[in-house]
Amino acid sequence: MKTVGIVGVGLIGGSFGLALRKAGFTGDILGVSSERSIADATERGAVDRGATLEEAAGACDLLFLSQPIFGIIETLRKLDPMVRPDTLVTDAGSTKQAIVEEAARSLRRCTFLGGHPMAGKELRGVGAADADLFRGRPWVLTSDLDHPLRQWIAAFGAREIILDPARHDRLVAWSSHLPQLASSALAAVIHDHAPDAGTVAGPGLLDSTRLAMSSFDLWRDILETNQREVSAALDAYIARLQTLRQDFEGEFAKGREFSRSLRQPG
Amino acid sequence: MKTVGIVGVGLIGGSFGLALRKAGFTGDILGVSSERSIADATERGAVDRGATLEEAAGACDLLFLSQPIFGIIETLRKLDPMVRPDTLVTDAGSTKQAIVEEAARSLRRCTFLGGHPMAGKELRGVGAADADLFRGRPWVLTSDLDHPLRQWIAAFGAREIILDPARHDRLVAWSSHLPQLASSALAAVIHDHAPDAGTVAGPGLLDSTRLAMSSFDLWRDILETNQREVSAALDAYIARLQTLRQDFEGEFAKGREFSRSLRQPG
Repeated sequence: MKTVGIVGVGLIGGSFGLALRKAGFTGDILGVSSERSIADATERGAVDRGATLEEAAGACDLLFLSQPIFGIIETLRKLDPMVRPDTLVTDAGSTKQAIVEEAARSLRRCTFLGGHPMAGKELRGVGAADADLFRGRPWVLTSDLDHPLRQWIAAFGAREIILDPARHDRLVAWSSHLPQLASSALAAVIHDHAPDAGTVAGPGLLDSTRLAMSSFDLWRDILETNQREVSAALDAYIARLQTLRQDFEGEFAKGREFSRSLRQPG
Repeated sequence: MKTVGIVGVGLIGGSFGLALRKAGFTGDILGVSSERSIADATERGAVDRGATLEEAAGACDLLFLSQPIFGIIETLRKLDPMVRPDTLVTDAGSTKQAIVEEAARSLRRCTFLGGHPMAGKELRGVGAADADLFRGRPWVLTSDLDHPLRQWIAAFGAREIILDPARHDRLVAWSSHLPQLASSALAAVIHDHAPDAGTVAGPGLLDSTRLAMSSFDLWRDILETNQREVSAALDAYIARLQTLRQDFEGEFAKGREFSRSLRQPG
């Protein structure tokens, strides 16, 4: 792996470049992004220089697509004529089925490996990029393809998890998309019914509304590409809230058990 | 205010004793609690010695009831014959209407001022008590009665808020009780539908399930004494989740606005 191209140099793409450098990657890193992002990313050392998609696709052993989901899908649609057959294309999209299906349809001349580094922060853009963003965090791959990328992921300190796309999308519907909707709906309903609830807010309300700070920009594509699983999770949550009053004690006990298990070391 | 009695010396009662001492209170502090709690509280300096309720009621200028809600109600039912007419009885119960109504019924010979210091932590018991537990946190009082207690609350660094009991119970239904139910139900439904969701858990799932770590012991009395307001909030939340899919973008925007307003300084 001598030359890497990062398509979409924001928080995740920029962090990928910085993490590669920190882990000892000495090859070229090309960035395909807006002029502004390339200027910032070059200054921060996340990429060496900007390139067009065609240039990067022809030059790189690895292409890392870190745009929003529909941006990745757009890139996949035009990438095939540009790539070298020995290039590996991977991505960082938050849902995997739509992207992996598009890659299977559109990208015939080289190999694609779906990926989802489960990291992020409230700030966006390459200015917030961090070489340690992936440390200790899961990095989902959609197959166990043998490729040096996996050694770099390990070198970042991330925890590789192999999941097929359907299973990934189902799990994140529960672990990430449902909590987001629960938090946004909670904050929105308090906004309408008790806008002054903040006067008696404790740390619990802050925890419960932290996800609701997220911008919808990041969520539009996620919700659209994981509709079926998100709807199923949301329906189950509504049903559970409807029956909660019949057995507060039992549901508190179950919730406590799950919450504790999440916090078990290992 | 020369002698203070703390009835129920756990996290809140113990912290009240420690906060009084830290703020310069030099009078006697009697504790009415289990033998074990009194031993721990004495060792930590939160109380000077244990006493029976009768003894404390006869000796104290201020009685601070910091038991669970139904414990406070039980105490109020038997306190009247024991108290001096110049004693102020106050409390730390998490709901206010049931307690203030019981005090109006049962406590005729002295004054009662309902209170709710909005502080806590995951650990319980006097071992976790902290002189700074109330610092920067709201301390609700159910009237603006002129009494030295209010100067001590200010000296603890707490933020006094006067709310009548009905308004208090309505606001905490939204700011505290609904977030608790939302978190417990979320954790319980994931427990049943996707127990392995933890393998791809990010910080959002941890935030969303932190309240679900709470023990039901603390919640039984709260939910029972605030049923009407809690039910109304829960119904509104369910209705909002049901219509969420029709306007994700608008609800995200509202939720974001409320969550940001919570975090505005001042």
